[in-house]
Amino acid sequence: MKRTAKAHWNGDLNTGSGVISSQSKVLDLTQYSFKTRFQDGIGTNPEELIAAADAGCFTMAVSAALTEAGFVAGNLDTEAILDLDMAALSITGIHLNLKADPISGVSEELFVKVAQGAKSHCIVSKALNVPISLTITYGETS
Amino acid sequence: MKRTAKAHWNGDLNTGSGVISSQSKVLDLTQYSFKTRFQDGIGTNPEELIAAADAGCFTMAVSAALTEAGFVAGNLDTEAILDLDMAALSITGIHLNLKADPISGVSEELFVKVAQGAKSHCIVSKALNVPISLTITYGETS
Repeated sequence: MKRTAKAHWNGDLNTGSGVISSQSKVLDLTQYSFKTRFQDGIGTNPEELIAAADAGCFTMAVSAALTEAGFVAGNLDTEAILDLDMAALSITGIHLNLKADPISGVSEELFVKVAQGAKSHCIVSKALNVPISLTITYGETS
Repeated sequence: MKRTAKAHWNGDLNTGSGVISSQSKVLDLTQYSFKTRFQDGIGTNPEELIAAADAGCFTMAVSAALTEAGFVAGNLDTEAILDLDMAALSITGIHLNLKADPISGVSEELFVKVAQGAKSHCIVSKALNVPISLTITYGETS
């Protein structure tokens, strides 16, 4: 299966600007620039898209692993926090912070095992070569 | 610098569904599901977000490298085509297809060198451990 996206840029690094579009049109000529990427301009940036991809992939993978184990996930909420080292221009890590409703029949021990497996095996995690850490809060959300 | 995103999922893999939000709100409770990811449902999926991140990062990096060499990019257009192996549930590669306006003083040889460097050194490429290939069309666009 192929998934595609397009980017357009015109001009130099600091004053030029670009747009990004994704196959689904969820991103549709969405603006990005030096300011949106490395400062606080309005628009997207590649790093938040990586964080979004990993949060989305991981959370779905937790559901998938629960399904495989014979359970159905309740609410699963993940925040992905990506660290960008501005001096090295390098992504140095992603932290996943998962909060999950309690699931009947699923102990905290089992849930932690499932979530740690999902962190390692989800498609996006496998495609990334940055350290990914995980904090789990199980059974305390509404 | 930190870049963040959130994902929410509820339910099993096949009939459950989720939403993804990014720090900039470019993604804002954007739907995703098994269908949007592995079939042809309406919504986003982590793989197109990876493709979008790489297209955006690479294209900006070409501009940056040209700036560093003393030149200003005209139109730069990149399509990123990501291959997802459905059997292995693995991203097997990303192909970047770059088209660029001719730039006064920049030979095709120099442009190719700059673009190949950007492919290797851009922040997202460095964070990915999948093979990335590049096709360059220089000077033939309007």
